[in-house]
Amino acid sequence: MSRPLNHALRVTVWNEFRHERASAQVGAVYPDGIHEALAAPLRAAGHAVRTATLDEPEHGLGAGVLEATDVLLWWGHRAHAEVEDDVVARVHARVLAGMGLIALHSAHFSKIFKRLMGTSCALKWRVADERERLWVVAPGHPIAAGLPERIDLAREEMYGEHFDIPPPDELVLLSWFQGGEVFRSGCCFHRGAGRIFYFRPGHETYPTYHEPAIQQVIANAVRWAAPAAPITPRRGHSEPLEPIG
Amino acid sequence: MSRPLNHALRVTVWNEFRHERASAQVGAVYPDGIHEALAAPLRAAGHAVRTATLDEPEHGLGAGVLEATDVLLWWGHRAHAEVEDDVVARVHARVLAGMGLIALHSAHFSKIFKRLMGTSCALKWRVADERERLWVVAPGHPIAAGLPERIDLAREEMYGEHFDIPPPDELVLLSWFQGGEVFRSGCCFHRGAGRIFYFRPGHETYPTYHEPAIQQVIANAVRWAAPAAPITPRRGHSEPLEPIG
Amino acid sequence: MSRPLNHALRVTVWNEFRHERASAQVGAVYPDGIHEALAAPLRAAGHAVRTATLDEPEHGLGAGVLEATDVLLWWGHRAHAEVEDDVVARVHARVLAGMGLIALHSAHFSKIFKRLMGTSCALKWRVADERERLWVVAPGHPIAAGLPERIDLAREEMYGEHFDIPPPDELVLLSWFQGGEVFRSGCCFHRGAGRIFYFRPGHETYPTYHEPAIQQVIANAVRWAAPAAPITPRRGHSEPLEPIG
Amino acid sequence: MSRPLNHALRVTVWNEFRHERASAQVGAVYPDGIHEALAAPLRAAGHAVRTATLDEPEHGLGAGVLEATDVLLWWGHRAHAEVEDDVVARVHARVLAGMGLIALHSAHFSKIFKRLMGTSCALKWRVADERERLWVVAPGHPIAAGLPERIDLAREEMYGEHFDIPPPDELVLLSWFQGGEVFRSGCCFHRGAGRIFYFRPGHETYPTYHEPAIQQVIANAVRWAAPAAPITPRRGHSEPLEPIG
Repeated sequence: MSRPLNHALRVTVWNEFRHERASAQVGAVYPDGIHEALAAPLRAAGHAVRTATLDEPEHGLGAGVLEATDVLLWWGHRAHAEVEDDVVARVHARVLAGMGLIALHSAHFSKIFKRLMGTSCALKWRVADERERLWVVAPGHPIAAGLPERIDLAREEMYGEHFDIPPPDELVLLSWFQGGEVFRSGCCFHRGAGRIFYFRPGHETYPTYHEPAIQQVIANAVRWAAPAAPITPRRGHSEPLEPIG
Repeated sequence: MSRPLNHALRVTVWNEFRHERASAQVGAVYPDGIHEALAAPLRAAGHAVRTATLDEPEHGLGAGVLEATDVLLWWGHRAHAEVEDDVVARVHARVLAGMGLIALHSAHFSKIFKRLMGTSCALKWRVADERERLWVVAPGHPIAAGLPERIDLAREEMYGEHFDIPPPDELVLLSWFQGGEVFRSGCCFHRGAGRIFYFRPGHETYPTYHEPAIQQVIANAVRWAAPAAPITPRRGHSEPLEPIG
Repeated sequence: MSRPLNHALRVTVWNEFRHERASAQVGAVYPDGIHEALAAPLRAAGHAVRTATLDEPEHGLGAGVLEATDVLLWWGHRAHAEVEDDVVARVHARVLAGMGLIALHSAHFSKIFKRLMGTSCALKWRVADERERLWVVAPGHPIAAGLPERIDLAREEMYGEHFDIPPPDELVLLSWFQGGEVFRSGCCFHRGAGRIFYFRPGHETYPTYHEPAIQQVIANAVRWAAPAAPITPRRGHSEPLEPIG
Repeated sequence: MSRPLNHALRVTVWNEFRHERASAQVGAVYPDGIHEALAAPLRAAGHAVRTATLDEPEHGLGAGVLEATDVLLWWGHRAHAEVEDDVVARVHARVLAGMGLIALHSAHFSKIFKRLMGTSCALKWRVADERERLWVVAPGHPIAAGLPERIDLAREEMYGEHFDIPPPDELVLLSWFQGGEVFRSGCCFHRGAGRIFYFRPGHETYPTYHEPAIQQVIANAVRWAAPAAPITPRRGHSEPLEPIG
């Protein structure tokens, strides 16, 4: 009734794709865009991956694309406000209907993530070329499968607590920063029939998404977030199943 | 630093207040409006209670009122769409800043509750004069303090699963319905610095809010949801606390 | 690094296997024992399934068997006290190391379940040939994959709240009983690297484990509880990763 | 029905009380024992505080003492194995019946904490005179009431992840360590009718329990963990509430 568990998934990688074109520094790190850096290892794992970017019509997320997407990755930063509310509403409905969503790094402030969380999603931040260590706190979680006990990143942006999200339904990774902060960096949420994973690393000036351990987390998260079976919840007025009175 | 724990709270009871005026049946059950039925036992418990209704200017929820509110109760049903977005945004900000919110019965579909949850908040329903039993599943929870193991209501509206909310952070009460359904009827959520309690019973044609055990749940929830201390989270750009590099 | 997701799992079905031999009524329902009724559909799904019963040496759970088990199912009722503490300790260690555990029906009072929960695991009960309805409250959960919105059982034992377990990490199914009670019937727990699913139905005098929808829940749970990858957490004394002082 | 919320609580502070007598270094930090350092601020807050230590008869925890205790604090380290199983069973039963428990620092390995958790409670550790920062991740939680956004400790023992506990029901504090680790340092658990708070800091060679902010956390936790009302759950065989058949 449910699909085979390791079938190829239909993955859409959405990227704002502005930094890479506007900044030589970022363009040097991600010459084909962050979306292609994210897509390549998922393609190599056998998934059917397409990409979509802000400046395409409907941001590349027409109804047909979303209907044909099992898991959506989202990277955005500067232009959150330019994402049209109609597209956000469409993505929101698809997540509640079962599509997985992986919100990456500065997507914490994206319209879609804030709408799903219901909170401000504010946090502390600093760009100072500092070390980050991501520690696994749920070693049996599917998103931690095959990971070492920690992932070290030589240079990253700092994100610090308090991170204004709902208490995660599952907490997988915690970050340590050289400058003195901590952060809930790998957080699972269940909303409607959809599964959401927030994953902190990925500032555009650092080669984070080229790191194999980071790619492993994302690949695990894609598998975890994929819907297990089509869902058609029945809601609204209902006749009684037992006699009343 | 924190306030004494049993100080009088500043409670605002918000009610749509349309059914009571439009329907003789409802008016007979709640002659002074649902808001007064909710307010009376809270006043008797020593709290400073005011009421606010939809047809007042700013729905009775001007900035000054919200600033002076520790816990807001919300009952709405037919006119959710008439609640102005500006007021919803103001209530939302106050909840994230620490104000407690008690969402009652059909408030599951209110703008403020849906915004805080991030989901559709849809459910099954039926009005058939049937029995409801609310079972305590967290006997040590403050909202269950002093309750019997279950509360029986002779006639209520049915609400059935699947109820499309995020997994509650704490689950206190489950309902059994005569017609064959179950429901997560007492659900706690933490959003920002605010505490939210959804409490299912309270269809306008039944005298539910006159029941002492129901009043006890609401009084407990008000106490539970009240902010323990003023909160001023620091967010945004942050200097390092430790040397980097 | 991690195993393919739909590989055949090594499943061990443990059964007390006393009722079936002592009672003609139970023997008629489960002529080969409850363990064989549980094992058959899992074998049909391609898993490598073995069975083990109380009266075998080491209850059939020698160290070699447990080492070669991905997921253990447990059905026990009358003879919980006869399960040797050494075997319980061995199962406990394997769960913390990543083996999945499916605790069925009266296994709520088994030594292994109580040890993993840390609570009394007490509940209400009644055998009265009454209807049970299991409602899905987490439609996107892998354990609910392919299920209808509810499962109806014509006759079952009643288990009622308060069920003294820790708050489940994920709640998948709630039961309605004809006699007026509700119960948290499908509960997920994470302990160490292991995943535990408690599933309520399965009184020995009823043909519950012959029901396809019940078999689907158990098959889904086996897949969900299986370890994703070998885990070797490092604990104990640790040298610093950064300079101190 | 429930007691006034700021009534004086009956608090028992349990301490192993060996380090302070065996080590001049520890004795200099806690001349009257860790228990007296913990008891003093709680007495000053108006609670009725008694102390109990390992070498007293029944470890100072006779049935009468426990019956008259609302919240028990526990500090132990070297002599966990010397705590008698009978006393552990008695404390366990009292927690499930509603008594609060605050497990401090190396009490992570105490018999009572491990029994309530059901896991190994293992962790990483190091004594290297390093800085610890405890960050508040739940600013609206009662245990965080009146706290600054973080607590800095100049020198503490390091505890690092993975900490083998069940996922906390509420996570209040995360620690950053100078040497590169993170830790879930303020964790709430609900077991039976009892509330449990694990609080990490407090190595015996450092003056941690003399820090006002640490005392504030403990005072808040005592208030949070106290039972709201007497509880008498009904379990076992139950007659139906509705007609069957």
